[in-house]
Amino acid sequence: MTAAVREGRIARRLEALAAISDEPGRLTRLYLSPAHGLAMRQVRAWMEEAGMTTRIDAVGNVMGRYEGSAPGAPCIMLGSHIDTVVDAGRFDGTLGVLAGIEVVDALRRAGELLPVAVEVIAFGDEEGVRFPTTLTGSRAVAGTLDPGVLDVRDGDGTSVRDALLAVGADPEALAACARGWGEVAAYLEAHIEQGPVLEAEDLPVGVVTAINGAARLRVEVTGEAGHAGTVPMGLRRDALAAAAEMVLAIERLAHGTLDLVATVGRLEALPGAVNVIPGGARFTIDLRSPEDTVRTAALAQLGASLREIAARRGVGVALELFHETPAVACDARLVGALAQACTASGSAPRLLPSGAGHDAMAMAALCPVGMLFVRCRGGISHNPAEWAEPADMDRAVAVLLHAVRALAAPPSQSADGRA
Amino acid sequence: MTAAVREGRIARRLEALAAISDEPGRLTRLYLSPAHGLAMRQVRAWMEEAGMTTRIDAVGNVMGRYEGSAPGAPCIMLGSHIDTVVDAGRFDGTLGVLAGIEVVDALRRAGELLPVAVEVIAFGDEEGVRFPTTLTGSRAVAGTLDPGVLDVRDGDGTSVRDALLAVGADPEALAACARGWGEVAAYLEAHIEQGPVLEAEDLPVGVVTAINGAARLRVEVTGEAGHAGTVPMGLRRDALAAAAEMVLAIERLAHGTLDLVATVGRLEALPGAVNVIPGGARFTIDLRSPEDTVRTAALAQLGASLREIAARRGVGVALELFHETPAVACDARLVGALAQACTASGSAPRLLPSGAGHDAMAMAALCPVGMLFVRCRGGISHNPAEWAEPADMDRAVAVLLHAVRALAAPPSQSADGRA
Repeated sequence: MTAAVREGRIARRLEALAAISDEPGRLTRLYLSPAHGLAMRQVRAWMEEAGMTTRIDAVGNVMGRYEGSAPGAPCIMLGSHIDTVVDAGRFDGTLGVLAGIEVVDALRRAGELLPVAVEVIAFGDEEGVRFPTTLTGSRAVAGTLDPGVLDVRDGDGTSVRDALLAVGADPEALAACARGWGEVAAYLEAHIEQGPVLEAEDLPVGVVTAINGAARLRVEVTGEAGHAGTVPMGLRRDALAAAAEMVLAIERLAHGTLDLVATVGRLEALPGAVNVIPGGARFTIDLRSPEDTVRTAALAQLGASLREIAARRGVGVALELFHETPAVACDARLVGALAQACTASGSAPRLLPSGAGHDAMAMAALCPVGMLFVRCRGGISHNPAEWAEPADMDRAVAVLLHAVRALAAPPSQSADGRA
Repeated sequence: MTAAVREGRIARRLEALAAISDEPGRLTRLYLSPAHGLAMRQVRAWMEEAGMTTRIDAVGNVMGRYEGSAPGAPCIMLGSHIDTVVDAGRFDGTLGVLAGIEVVDALRRAGELLPVAVEVIAFGDEEGVRFPTTLTGSRAVAGTLDPGVLDVRDGDGTSVRDALLAVGADPEALAACARGWGEVAAYLEAHIEQGPVLEAEDLPVGVVTAINGAARLRVEVTGEAGHAGTVPMGLRRDALAAAAEMVLAIERLAHGTLDLVATVGRLEALPGAVNVIPGGARFTIDLRSPEDTVRTAALAQLGASLREIAARRGVGVALELFHETPAVACDARLVGALAQACTASGSAPRLLPSGAGHDAMAMAALCPVGMLFVRCRGGISHNPAEWAEPADMDRAVAVLLHAVRALAAPPSQSADGRA
C-alpha cells in the first residue's frame, strides 16, 4: 500500500511547462493567455495519465479527481497555480500542482483507495499580472469571487470574459465554480518558500503556520529645504535625515518583535539635489506578521515612534495606510499532519510563516488550509534564477503523500497510523 | 567729509533691475542674454551718474572707476555679479554691485578723494547656468580664465564668443581683462547671506572669514534584494537601512565638528518597490568647511565610518569623490576692517564662513578679498522669495563705506581714524 515517489519527474515536467510561454526565450504565462491555455491542456493530460477524471471550470481552473473508496466523498484538495509573472521562474505555483499529481499517481500505482477523494487543482490568476485582479481561480472555488471580475479588462482592452471564451472556458458558469461546504475537507498547497529560511537551516521542506497579514504605508516627512553650504547643522530641519532615523526605528522595531518583518522599499529626498538640504522625504513601509495583533500593535508603535522623531527634529510627518490584509492562519490539524509527515520522511518539522500571499489565502474561506514550503536557492523567486532541487521537490511529494494518508485515516486510527 | 547713505535707493534699484528679465513674470537673467545686456547698460548708467568713468570689458564685466587723489593709484574694488539663476531672487549678486555704486556716490557727494581709487564691478557668469562655465567674469579679471571658454556653447549651440559679440563686447580682447599685480589693493563683496545665521542672531550684517571648501561624493551601497514578506529580519542585507545609518553618521559627524556642514541631498533605493528589500542604495554627500584640514579630516573619518557600518551589516560600500575645491580665506586685514566698520556702524561684528561660492573666490587669485554678508529672510536664495530689508542693505553700504575709508587711510593713521 505504500508507493515511492517517481524520482525527478516533477523536475522534468517543470522544465517542459517552462517551455510553454507567451514570450520566446523567457517564461511568461499570464492568466488566460495562449500559453496558459496550452499549459492547462498539458496539466489536464498529466492528471488523466495519473488516473484522475478532469474538467476545466468557468474561470480556467484545471481540476482532476481521484475517487476514494466511497464515491462522492469529500476530498482533500492539493494544488496551486500555473500562471506566472513576466520573466518568471518555473517553480512558483506550478510545483504545487505537479506535486499533487505525483501524490495521486503514487496512490493509483499502489492501487490505494482512501476513505476520501483526492483532487488536484491548477488555479489561474494567482499572480494578478494581466488583469487588475488576483486569486481569481481560488476565489471562484471558495465562492468569494465578485462576478464583476468578468468585465475587468487587461491593458489591451480584453475583458476576463472574452479571455475565458478564448481558452474554451464558459464564463457564464461562474457561480458553479464554488464548492459547497463540506465538499473540500482540506486544501494543501506545496510551494517554493520564496525566502531564505530553509536554505539557511539546511532543511528541504517546512510547514507554514500562517500566511502573513500585511500593512502598507506611505510616509511623508516635511522639513525645510536649504543651501547645503550656508545653513549650519544646528539650524537645519533636514527631512531626509529625519527619514533616515525613521528607517532605522522601523528596522529596530521589526528586529525586536517576534514574527514581524518591516521593509522600507522606496525612499526619495526632495528636491533631490546634491547641494540642497532636503525639504521633503517620502518613503513606504511594508509590515507583515502571521499575527494580526502583532501587526496592529506594531503599526501603533511605529506611528508613535515616527511622530516622536519628527517632533524632536522639528519636522512634520504624515502616515497614510493604503493597504491592509489580515493574516490567514493555517489549520492546526493540517499543520500537525504536515509536521508529522516531515518527521516521518526524515526531515525536522520546521514551522514558519509565509511572507508572500498564496491561493491558500482564498481557499481558507472555504475549508481548512495547510501549506508545505520547499527550499529554494537563495530565497529567489519571480526571477529566472528561481531554483528548487529535484530531491527537495520529491521530498515534498513524499511529505504530502504521508499527510494525505494520515488525514484520510478514520479518527479511530492515530494520525500517523499508516507510517 | 562724511556722507550719509541714500536711504532705500538700493531697494528701489533692485526692484528696477528685477524687471529686466529674459522671462515674463519672473526674474531670469542668464549670462550674456538680452536681459543681461540691458542690465549691463543700466548699471553702467548708474555708475556714471555716481561720477565714475566706465567701460565694459571683453567678457561683459561692467566697470566704473572713481579716481582718488592721485590718479592711476591702485584701487579698492567693490562688486559682485548681475547674472541670475532661472526664476531668481533680485538680491543675489546685484546687491553687491549696487552697494558699491552707493559707496562711490557717497564719496562723490562728499567731494571726498581717497589716496586710492575706488572701482565698482558687475561681473557676469557667477551662477554658471547658461554655459557649462562659472565665475567667467571674475576669473577673467583675476587672469585665471582659460581662453578656451570662448568656444563653450549653451544648450542652443551658441558659443560664449558669439554671445559676447551679441551684447557688444569684444571677445578677442579677453587677455586684456586681467588686472596686473598691485592694481587692485583689495576686493570687497557684499552679498546676501543665503543662510539663516544672521537672522537667527538678529544681526543686519556679518563678516565672512572664508569661503568654504567643498567635497562632493557619490556613495553606492550594495546589499541583497529580497521579498519584503519572506526574508526574516536577521537574514537581510538591506542596502537602504545601511544607507540610513550612514546618513545619520554623516549628520552626527558634522554636528560634532566645528565649522563643518554635511548634507545628503539625494538618496534612492533600488529597485525601489514597496514590497522588495532594497538590494542597492545610492546617495550623495556634500561636505563644506572654511578649513581645508577640517574637510580633509572629515572625509577620512566619513570613509572609515561608512565602511564600518557596511562591514557590520554585511553590505558593500563604494565612495567616489567627484568634486573638490579648497577653501578660500578672506584676508585678515580686510576681515578686521569690516569688523571694525560693523562696530562703528552699531552692529556686533559677527564673523561667519560663507557656505556658498562667490566671485571673491576667483578674485582671491589676484588680491586680498573680503566679504560682507547681509541678513536675508529665512536664509532663502535662488528663489523669488529671496528678501533683504532695505535698512539692512543701507547698513551694508555704511559698513562698506567705513571700511573703504579705513583701508584707504595712510598706514600712519589708525584704521578707524576717519570715524
